[in-house]
Amino acid sequence: MERLPGFRDFYPEPVPARDAWSASVRQHLFAQWRHVAERYGFREYDGPPLEPLELFTVKSGAEIVGQLYNFTDKGGRDVSLRPEMTPTLARMAAAAERQYKKPLKWFAIPQLFRYERQQKGRLREHFQFNADILGEADPAADAELIALLIDSLRALGLTGEDFVVRLSSRTAWQEFFDRGAADRSRAYEFFQVVDKLEREAPETSAQRLDELGFTLAQVREFIERAEPTADLQAILSSLSARNLAAYVKLDYTVIRGLAYYTGTVFEAFDRKGEFRAIAGGGRYDNLLKLISGGKVDLPALGFGMGDVVLTELLRARGRLPAREGALDVFVLVADEAQRTASLGFVQQLREAGSRVEYPMTPAKWDRQFKRALELGATWTAQLLAAANGGAAVRLKALATREEFELPLADALGRIVSRAG
Amino acid sequence: MERLPGFRDFYPEPVPARDAWSASVRQHLFAQWRHVAERYGFREYDGPPLEPLELFTVKSGAEIVGQLYNFTDKGGRDVSLRPEMTPTLARMAAAAERQYKKPLKWFAIPQLFRYERQQKGRLREHFQFNADILGEADPAADAELIALLIDSLRALGLTGEDFVVRLSSRTAWQEFFDRGAADRSRAYEFFQVVDKLEREAPETSAQRLDELGFTLAQVREFIERAEPTADLQAILSSLSARNLAAYVKLDYTVIRGLAYYTGTVFEAFDRKGEFRAIAGGGRYDNLLKLISGGKVDLPALGFGMGDVVLTELLRARGRLPAREGALDVFVLVADEAQRTASLGFVQQLREAGSRVEYPMTPAKWDRQFKRALELGATWTAQLLAAANGGAAVRLKALATREEFELPLADALGRIVSRAG
Repeated sequence: MERLPGFRDFYPEPVPARDAWSASVRQHLFAQWRHVAERYGFREYDGPPLEPLELFTVKSGAEIVGQLYNFTDKGGRDVSLRPEMTPTLARMAAAAERQYKKPLKWFAIPQLFRYERQQKGRLREHFQFNADILGEADPAADAELIALLIDSLRALGLTGEDFVVRLSSRTAWQEFFDRGAADRSRAYEFFQVVDKLEREAPETSAQRLDELGFTLAQVREFIERAEPTADLQAILSSLSARNLAAYVKLDYTVIRGLAYYTGTVFEAFDRKGEFRAIAGGGRYDNLLKLISGGKVDLPALGFGMGDVVLTELLRARGRLPAREGALDVFVLVADEAQRTASLGFVQQLREAGSRVEYPMTPAKWDRQFKRALELGATWTAQLLAAANGGAAVRLKALATREEFELPLADALGRIVSRAG
Repeated sequence: MERLPGFRDFYPEPVPARDAWSASVRQHLFAQWRHVAERYGFREYDGPPLEPLELFTVKSGAEIVGQLYNFTDKGGRDVSLRPEMTPTLARMAAAAERQYKKPLKWFAIPQLFRYERQQKGRLREHFQFNADILGEADPAADAELIALLIDSLRALGLTGEDFVVRLSSRTAWQEFFDRGAADRSRAYEFFQVVDKLEREAPETSAQRLDELGFTLAQVREFIERAEPTADLQAILSSLSARNLAAYVKLDYTVIRGLAYYTGTVFEAFDRKGEFRAIAGGGRYDNLLKLISGGKVDLPALGFGMGDVVLTELLRARGRLPAREGALDVFVLVADEAQRTASLGFVQQLREAGSRVEYPMTPAKWDRQFKRALELGATWTAQLLAAANGGAAVRLKALATREEFELPLADALGRIVSRAG
């Protein structure tokens, strides 16, 4: 039986097939995301992967249903796997925000699901690092969130040569639009044209802009001049104070497709332009009120960073963690008379925090040693028959093939001090 | 809008309502499970939460469908949220086991879903620590797996006074049944009666046993005598060698409800008997072949440990982690002229691994200090105007209210050495 198309299996390393993903790489991303978020004082939350369908249609309209994994459950409820996290965040914040001090700095690492018509290799699920700040309208919050985004990528080994955060402003575009619009109600249509500028034929863009009261030249000039709004200036200053200015640039071609952004918008890209956006986000000061049916009205902003593009980029730049060192010690059982004592030694090592393997059943010494090498063990350790001085251990460092004979307690201390 | 009944929200501490769960407690369980599994040389895997429906009906029959979150997707596929992990494990192992050395020692922490008729407080999802060993028939593998189970609970702070693993054997019961059965094809029926002995009225059990050719007294005597099989003896010896014998006891009342167990079966219980089983598992040497349609035929065993009963037990025994210490430093910005330099200091601290908060917008000093206390910070740090000796920091240890003035680099060193 096959897994469903568009879904992934995560295997232990080395992954057995080209379309198999690595569970330890995934765990590496999650651990780094979590670690950076905590350094920034963000607190973890999560909701169910299954939510009432209405939670998603309220925000995105009935059209979204065509892209959802939705169904009617056995209790007759219309439900859906979550395609994004923001509606769940809004629901949870609406229920409980009064019990937390503002601003809320929250993060989550949900798995998200979208039923998209199958394209070759196109996934229908991914994991996404979501970070949001609720309850702070000042651009200081935008700077804090963008700094978190930058440090999330740096924590994974990426540098300013690998990526850049392109910073823009819906406010700036709204003002530009309001100054020249033929019909002020068509702002979202205008944003969509700007969003597609880099992908669409110039004639198409020009014609659509003309209908809205603009020339392509005007729009291009506005992008090229790129005068920062007061908010963007404040954000840039705050990032400079953190010594992070080199990781961002003003770029008004970024506008973000979604309707609900209200201020700063940004996207992180690889500098070589080989991949889709690594992450994106912005301010959505009116969205919580909309989704919560008026129950919570907080200014807010956030970003999402998916695991798929990020993993591809890390692989391309050689920044995935090395596989070595998954095992600290392989305990050799050369003499079955030593098995009981060896099991006791295995247990002592594990209790001291070491990652330990041993042959569960009798096996030839050279097969055991080969297995230790395959598993990438740092040490092999072989218990020797207890002499008058008590039990002793023959320790071998597999990197150097250096060998020692030590009393058991000393061997334990030596291994644990290196196991870290 | 409410979340679906039977599903949980996980909030940052302190959780805002009685029915809200703690994201950091969940993360604590996951981190400990993962850490112990790695010490035992188990490797992580995961599959999709959504699988072809058939994957579950092959193993459990069509009756299981009534308990599933199943539906037809937009491509006409019959799919289901996973109610358990073993079918996914079998599918993944069948596809790739030839590329791994045996035995496979694999673990996962999936979220599992069951549509059960709603009972008050009954959940429809939970997280489960799953560990399995594939490809080793020797009881040495049973001992290794049970040792992992014991150490998973000990890693969470539980002791031999809190829990015990009750050890039994389907083989022993099968032999007992075969010796006296009126009809040898009714073994599973017999196991079901034994499984319910502690919950059913003695007359009911006696009558059902009579139909199968046994008296209740015979069965009770077999349980009380509890003579270990050779496999159970080997397991007990191995656990003794690891100094873990005090955590298990032979108990033939345990038989496990499911049809597919073939040898050792076991369940972990709290000693006071206040909770449902904490974990359970056993040998299922024929199951992989069945689920994989003959593609993989490996002896196997495993256990599952859910997060719900375990969290209740840890709370009842006072073993949940303390909330203190989620923040290392709160950087006070007493003088707005110091904001830029303070942001630089915040960044330095975070880059050194500290968890740092600061006031994003101007605020009175006492409000800032109160916030530092609320957040449980270890230190407050306030940058002082640079004098001729360079920048200085006023550091305060909030536990003792001790205060120092130090050069910036020294303050950084002092905080980071304690941040761990």
